[in-house]
Order: sequence, then structure tokens, then C-alpha cells
Amino acid sequence: MEIERKFLVKSIPDNLTSYPYRHLEQGYLCTNPVVRVRKDNDSYELTYKGKGKMVREEHNLPLTKESYEHLKTKVDGRIISKTRYMIPYQEYTIELDIFENDLAPLILAEVEFPSVEEAEKFIGPDWFGEDVTQSKKYHNSTMSQM
Amino acid sequence: MEIERKFLVKSIPDNLTSYPYRHLEQGYLCTNPVVRVRKDNDSYELTYKGKGKMVREEHNLPLTKESYEHLKTKVDGRIISKTRYMIPYQEYTIELDIFENDLAPLILAEVEFPSVEEAEKFIGPDWFGEDVTQSKKYHNSTMSQM
Repeated sequence: MEIERKFLVKSIPDNLTSYPYRHLEQGYLCTNPVVRVRKDNDSYELTYKGKGKMVREEHNLPLTKESYEHLKTKVDGRIISKTRYMIPYQEYTIELDIFENDLAPLILAEVEFPSVEEAEKFIGPDWFGEDVTQSKKYHNSTMSQM
Repeated sequence: MEIERKFLVKSIPDNLTSYPYRHLEQGYLCTNPVVRVRKDNDSYELTYKGKGKMVREEHNLPLTKESYEHLKTKVDGRIISKTRYMIPYQEYTIELDIFENDLAPLILAEVEFPSVEEAEKFIGPDWFGEDVTQSKKYHNSTMSQM
């Protein structure tokens, strides 16, 4: 199970490049359920996500570079590219996604929680904007099809 | 983990239609690792299988009819159709696959085990033929590409 909330941001932290980051490239073979292929720096995976917004069943399964490149030819819509910064905040990690190419200048922040209770009581930093956890529009799977 | 052995058959049991059976239709998005979509009677699933012959990591994830039909358009090679008879034998179940269409008249028997030890000491019924567990040729993923 993955329990997470997603936010728009009003501004980005000044010292962004001081945080660790990864480059992500991903596409969708199917959106309901989600069947996604992703390149995460130099590793590759197939992800399955069941129904739900804040709480979703999720499986991450390893791919080789070759199988990723093969499955990438089968995706619907666009390949999403983004840089993900990992920013410590309280006992959590904010994943700040800076989207590239035609989804720029979109920026989204995600936070994952160990329980629904913690997710519900979470208050983000000042630079967080609207909570879009319940909005299908900001699912990467939706954005891949726009 | 899935632990199984696979056999050719010399003959099929006389009373085959007295056993329960299911109709399977399946295709492959990728063969290494295996990413398979399958229709099993009226249920649908996405399966991921890691490396290995007798012992393989396996995940079975539910699909809707719509997502199955969508992913089916993306498979490589042929769709495999077969009828699977479930035949009790000792404390195991023999799955006897009767292949249809251009893979007919191929027939294969599979048996799944709870441990490698049981798999290794298993002796099949008289009508079992050659053990092809180690043969890539009889992987359904290989046969889908022939």
C-alpha cells in the first residue's frame, strides 16, 4: 500500500540544488489500473498501482535496460521526464518533481506516509500550495495522456 | 516464488472431461522478465515473472476486462489459447494444457510444488513423457514468439 498526499507549490526552496535528486523518465501502458514503466537514474522498473487516490496498492518490479526500452515503445501518450529532489521535512521526505519538456513549468510535491492518520494530520511547509491529492488531473498517468 | 516442473505427455487420461477446466488466453508484452496478460475464464490478470526455470519470482495482479483488452493490443507475437484441465494426483494438481489454434496439437503438463525438495523427488503418472522443465522451448513466452 502507498499512502501519499500531493501538493502544488507556491515557490521552490532557494537551496534546491543542495538536496539529493534523481532523474525520472516514465510512461504508461495502461492507466486503470496503472501499469507504468520508469527509468530512475540508472535503474528500471515496472509499476502496478491499484485503484485509489491517497491509498493505493503498489508493486514495483525490476526491469532490465533492454526490457524497459522495449516496453517504452508500447506506452500510450507521452513519456514524462522530471527531476525529483528529495527534501527532508519533519520526519518525512518531500519529493519535489520539476517537470520537463512540454509539461514544464509544472512543479508538484509529494509526501509519503506510514499511515492514513499521519497523512491526514500533516501540515506542509509555507511554500506548499493547494492540496491536489484528490485531483485526477495531477496524476502522472493523466498527464501522460494530455 | 513459483516452483514447478513441466512435462510432455505420451497420452491423455481417458476421462479428461470429468475434471474441472478453465479456458486461458494469454500474450506477452515482454519475455525477459516475463510480463504477461491473461484471460482466465472471466477474470483478467497481469503477471510478472522473474528469472529462473524451476523456481521463479511471480506476481499476479488483477486487470479489468477493459485494461486486458487494451494491453492485449500491445503484445509481441501471438496470443496463446489453451484449455487447462486440473487433475488431482497424489497431493498435487496436474495442470494439463491442451493448446489450440496454430500451437495444436501440443499438450503440456505442469505441476506446482511447495518446495524445491518436493519438486525434485516428484515422479509423475505413467502417461507423463519427457521432463522439459529446463527447456526454454516450451516456455509459453517462447512459444508466443515462434
